[in-house]
Amino acid sequence: MKRILLIIAYDGTDYAGWQRQDNALTVEEILEDALTSLTGEAIDIAGASRTDAGVHAYGNVAVFDTDSPIPPERFAIALNSYLPDAIRVTESMVVPDDFHPRYAESEKTYQYHILNTKIPLPTMSRYAHHVYEDLDVDAMRSASSCLIGEHDFTAFCSAGSQVKSKVRTIYSIDIDVTPLYEESEDYDRDICIRITGNGFLYNMVRIIAGTLIEVGLGRFTPERVEQALTQKKRDLAGPTAPAKGLFLEMIDYLPL
Amino acid sequence: MKRILLIIAYDGTDYAGWQRQDNALTVEEILEDALTSLTGEAIDIAGASRTDAGVHAYGNVAVFDTDSPIPPERFAIALNSYLPDAIRVTESMVVPDDFHPRYAESEKTYQYHILNTKIPLPTMSRYAHHVYEDLDVDAMRSASSCLIGEHDFTAFCSAGSQVKSKVRTIYSIDIDVTPLYEESEDYDRDICIRITGNGFLYNMVRIIAGTLIEVGLGRFTPERVEQALTQKKRDLAGPTAPAKGLFLEMIDYLPL
Repeated sequence: MKRILLIIAYDGTDYAGWQRQDNALTVEEILEDALTSLTGEAIDIAGASRTDAGVHAYGNVAVFDTDSPIPPERFAIALNSYLPDAIRVTESMVVPDDFHPRYAESEKTYQYHILNTKIPLPTMSRYAHHVYEDLDVDAMRSASSCLIGEHDFTAFCSAGSQVKSKVRTIYSIDIDVTPLYEESEDYDRDICIRITGNGFLYNMVRIIAGTLIEVGLGRFTPERVEQALTQKKRDLAGPTAPAKGLFLEMIDYLPL
Repeated sequence: MKRILLIIAYDGTDYAGWQRQDNALTVEEILEDALTSLTGEAIDIAGASRTDAGVHAYGNVAVFDTDSPIPPERFAIALNSYLPDAIRVTESMVVPDDFHPRYAESEKTYQYHILNTKIPLPTMSRYAHHVYEDLDVDAMRSASSCLIGEHDFTAFCSAGSQVKSKVRTIYSIDIDVTPLYEESEDYDRDICIRITGNGFLYNMVRIIAGTLIEVGLGRFTPERVEQALTQKKRDLAGPTAPAKGLFLEMIDYLPL
């Protein structure tokens, strides 16, 4: 028996998220079915991040145990022939038998994409949240700085979360702007909020994105964001931004 | 009666191209139905470019005649509420009654996107042609230069085209490379071939892309491309690259 780690990219648009469900198709179920077809074993995978419906990934991570003679690094290519185009395994490797992707210490990086244009762009409608009004990106950058470091992120977590501690550390928040057209007279652009941290609460990145959008719209001051953080009040933060703008970019495991 | 021009962006993935057909859904039919719902008139539109199934557009152009009292520049926003997310009208304006988008003198710009990675990226699978092998972009650039200028592009046109003259002028071909990940050790990147010209033959951009990919793979020398051009032989050029990598970026009308 050996434990294999997979790095997985997917377009979340047409799936009901990562975690297996009874009445809806999920990424976990498709991966397990593909692994069972490939190995002939009943395979149970454990994922690093249970992304929600509509959330995309460049590098989610999962592990499974197998007696298959397939060389560990060959699983990526072998699996892809069993998977739909919307899901690709980009890498596979052997890991220690006790390695668990959800509990091992890691740095996670997410991207949140905002399509900031007067008219939504059809070829980005699956992969970005459209905001019509011209966003003040400098104000968003300025407001984001108070979130960096170790904090209690209660204000940036959906109610109903069961976790004991809401203390997490954000290492960096970068907001990058990419113009969409070469010769645009308007503010047509993709705004990417890229966040790296040691862990994220339920909906935390989407609430941070929703809050920074409020700042960009001029509805919240940067001080309001700091107030939400220190007062730990969810209703002082902004709304949860839609799932389709969120990408799990990568998970960097410190022990590996 | 006045003539209105529309600039239209669409994701071509789920449509059978631009031109109205009996048994398949097309962009033209959806636009005409939306215009009829909006104005109450039986509207017939004339498009600039009859893009094929799967081809995308940032700026295709169409005109129609109407007696509607809606101000010309308001058609864009009014129409979008009748259209699916995959089709957006980005601009509308009045044009002279005799303006025809297919026959008026123009400069057209197309983009062809190649996803050059070991593993295809799910969130780009609708919008780029995947090539596994590391492409030699310098060789592609060098080979593209012979195509610039006024030439007979018979070698770069699908057989069966009915046009009289196959002489067209290409003003520029730029090949831009964008890395996909910040910290990639591999050649993971988006290669965009951007071509501007006064007109293009049937499948011309896709055959140019397919030919430059052969050069990038080392199967064709740059001299072979020049030979195809001067000998006007379709079989000396490369295959027609898939529709999904092609974007009609914009049409710049000289008289407007």
